[in-house]
Amino acid sequence: MNEKMLPPIAIELTKSPKARPPADKLGFGKYYTDHMFIMDYDTDRGWHEPRIVPYQPITLDPSAKVFHYGQTVFEGLKAYPTADGRILLFRPRKNAERLNRSNERLSMPTLDEEIVLEGLKQLVKIDRDWIPNEPGTSLYIRPFVIATESALGVAPSREYKFMIILSPVGMYYAGGMKPISIFVESKYVRAVEGGVGTAKTAGNYAASLKAQEEAARLGCDQVLWLDGVQRKYVEEVGSMNVFFRIGDKVVTPALNGSFLAGVTRDSVIQMLRHWEVPLEERAITIDEIVQAYREGRLTEIFGTGTAAVISPVGELCWHGERMKVGNGSAGELSARIYDTLTGIQTGKLEDPFDWTIAIDGAE
Amino acid sequence: MNEKMLPPIAIELTKSPKARPPADKLGFGKYYTDHMFIMDYDTDRGWHEPRIVPYQPITLDPSAKVFHYGQTVFEGLKAYPTADGRILLFRPRKNAERLNRSNERLSMPTLDEEIVLEGLKQLVKIDRDWIPNEPGTSLYIRPFVIATESALGVAPSREYKFMIILSPVGMYYAGGMKPISIFVESKYVRAVEGGVGTAKTAGNYAASLKAQEEAARLGCDQVLWLDGVQRKYVEEVGSMNVFFRIGDKVVTPALNGSFLAGVTRDSVIQMLRHWEVPLEERAITIDEIVQAYREGRLTEIFGTGTAAVISPVGELCWHGERMKVGNGSAGELSARIYDTLTGIQTGKLEDPFDWTIAIDGAE
Ligand SMILES: Cc1ncc(COP(=O)(O)O)c(C=O)c1O
Ligand SMILES: Cc1ncc(COP(=O)(O)O)c(C=O)c1O
Repeated sequence: MNEKMLPPIAIELTKSPKARPPADKLGFGKYYTDHMFIMDYDTDRGWHEPRIVPYQPITLDPSAKVFHYGQTVFEGLKAYPTADGRILLFRPRKNAERLNRSNERLSMPTLDEEIVLEGLKQLVKIDRDWIPNEPGTSLYIRPFVIATESALGVAPSREYKFMIILSPVGMYYAGGMKPISIFVESKYVRAVEGGVGTAKTAGNYAASLKAQEEAARLGCDQVLWLDGVQRKYVEEVGSMNVFFRIGDKVVTPALNGSFLAGVTRDSVIQMLRHWEVPLEERAITIDEIVQAYREGRLTEIFGTGTAAVISPVGELCWHGERMKVGNGSAGELSARIYDTLTGIQTGKLEDPFDWTIAIDGAE
Repeated sequence: MNEKMLPPIAIELTKSPKARPPADKLGFGKYYTDHMFIMDYDTDRGWHEPRIVPYQPITLDPSAKVFHYGQTVFEGLKAYPTADGRILLFRPRKNAERLNRSNERLSMPTLDEEIVLEGLKQLVKIDRDWIPNEPGTSLYIRPFVIATESALGVAPSREYKFMIILSPVGMYYAGGMKPISIFVESKYVRAVEGGVGTAKTAGNYAASLKAQEEAARLGCDQVLWLDGVQRKYVEEVGSMNVFFRIGDKVVTPALNGSFLAGVTRDSVIQMLRHWEVPLEERAITIDEIVQAYREGRLTEIFGTGTAAVISPVGELCWHGERMKVGNGSAGELSARIYDTLTGIQTGKLEDPFDWTIAIDGAE
């Protein structure tokens, strides 16, 4: 429990609860719960009026800055139901911290992390019936900030809205743990050092769509980004960080100022260290990966991210070649990490890292 | 006149016209006229229902893609009043074309350029009383497209809105043609080849705010961006392209796939060629600029863009040094270009390039 005085969160409950979507239709980010959290900012009053209200559309002037100059940041985390009826959040403080790092990079006002966490907990508690509990399902939590000032000058907005919406989600990959195919991108660039690649901001995702579309046309599921300067260092995959198992080691790109520092990435690193699996965080060229593949030492690749948790990669598409990795199902280490991480997230396994927070209990 | 059948534009006029703002309070992008143009897109129907309606807020679901993944593009152009009561648009077709190039880069549906132009003309005609006519003022036109689908998956939106809003604007630089000071940015990067730097999309502007704030803290008005790969080639300035007068030549960075191809830039190039001023479009390093300065051969720098038209640069801040360029007022060539371009734009001078289009006449 924190000691600071938080402003009270006003609560207005819906009078017309929506029907719950069937569990097999959930998908990702298609349904939203009955309520949302909202808080406003202006330069005079700072952040004010935190409130939970019925989920509803927002009304903005057509000149609102978010539509023109893209000042917006977001986060993504999940609430998991446990077998004994509790609700667990996975490392939500990391998301609140990252939201603020994103805010800073985008010249947006930072938020009191305690209010973010408190708003999030109260909202999830109010909409707790919306949490699905079929295996692999969860409640996705999307905090975001948008610039709302009505003004066309290119300058930081003087008004913002911070909101949290909730979406019950199914398994991210409809086919379950089936390995995905990734396309190594050599034409498009997502972000570069000195840019906004480490921030979770809209523009990075807009910039990635074209590459994703072209990869899909070639039958690949996602894009593996290379660095924008030398076009040879591996960075991240779509909405995931990436790990390679080469020989007896696991390697993952070191944080370099151009891709997102994933919460799942950090958790996997801690877990591997805990297990005493040799791990290297360092710059990795695509050539090194290809060579390890040719030598038969590349045994597993997996992506890490909140949406999919762990996503095994079964194929790398590079310069017209399709390199198969693994035997068509999740690798041994990928599966072990997935089982452990989701086990901790859903309270099935012990949590030696103190990662989970029960929604209604103390931290 | 075009031959194609355009869908008719439905028109609903306002019942409560707003008061006109005083000419000396206009600023840039602070006031909006009585009407706006709007047209919707979905994957089934394509673009449909073009209409002009009273200027009004828009209502979107909190999960609308523009808030999260930044699929949005925009344009900026101006309508100018002539002394004999006509209204001129300056090369609007170039903006419609660029809007579509931006749409393509962002995986957004392209627009029929004729509808864009027709919507724009009809809207300006309806709100023609809003066009200020004090020297240096004009009607700024902001066409833009936003992704409106309610879905959190990272994929191109299946729904969009295209809108045009109008804003009467004063002189962009409150101090008139007073030269500005620019900060040569060596820490932050705006865009890189393979990214979205050539598109007029929100994320590029969001990414630029931090550098702009830090430059302002050092007493500089705008940022001069260097390329993101080698960090030595000059790219563009804030919302302007940039030209250097070195010895008897004018040089400007060649379009390289990472900065915007300005309409004003293209016009200045054509004008200089017409005048037979030696001009080079090529890669230019900051070192070359600094050396020309040291040798006394750097006599003028100016930015080009719709908002300011021509903006003389009087100072370059680089590695702690403040290099003065010119004598504190606009250089001779900058002034000549400004006078000619604004003369053509407002119908005071002949238009040998066929750049202007009268709003109610044929093209
Ligand atoms: C670009 C990008 N990289 C990596 C990740 C993984 O981060 P996390 O593990 O915090 O979900 C995400 C998002 O979730 C992302 O959007
Ligand atoms: C980034 C950027 N560069 C250059 C320009 C100049 O382009 P134009 O002359 O078409 O206005 C603009 C905008 O207007 C811009 O936003």
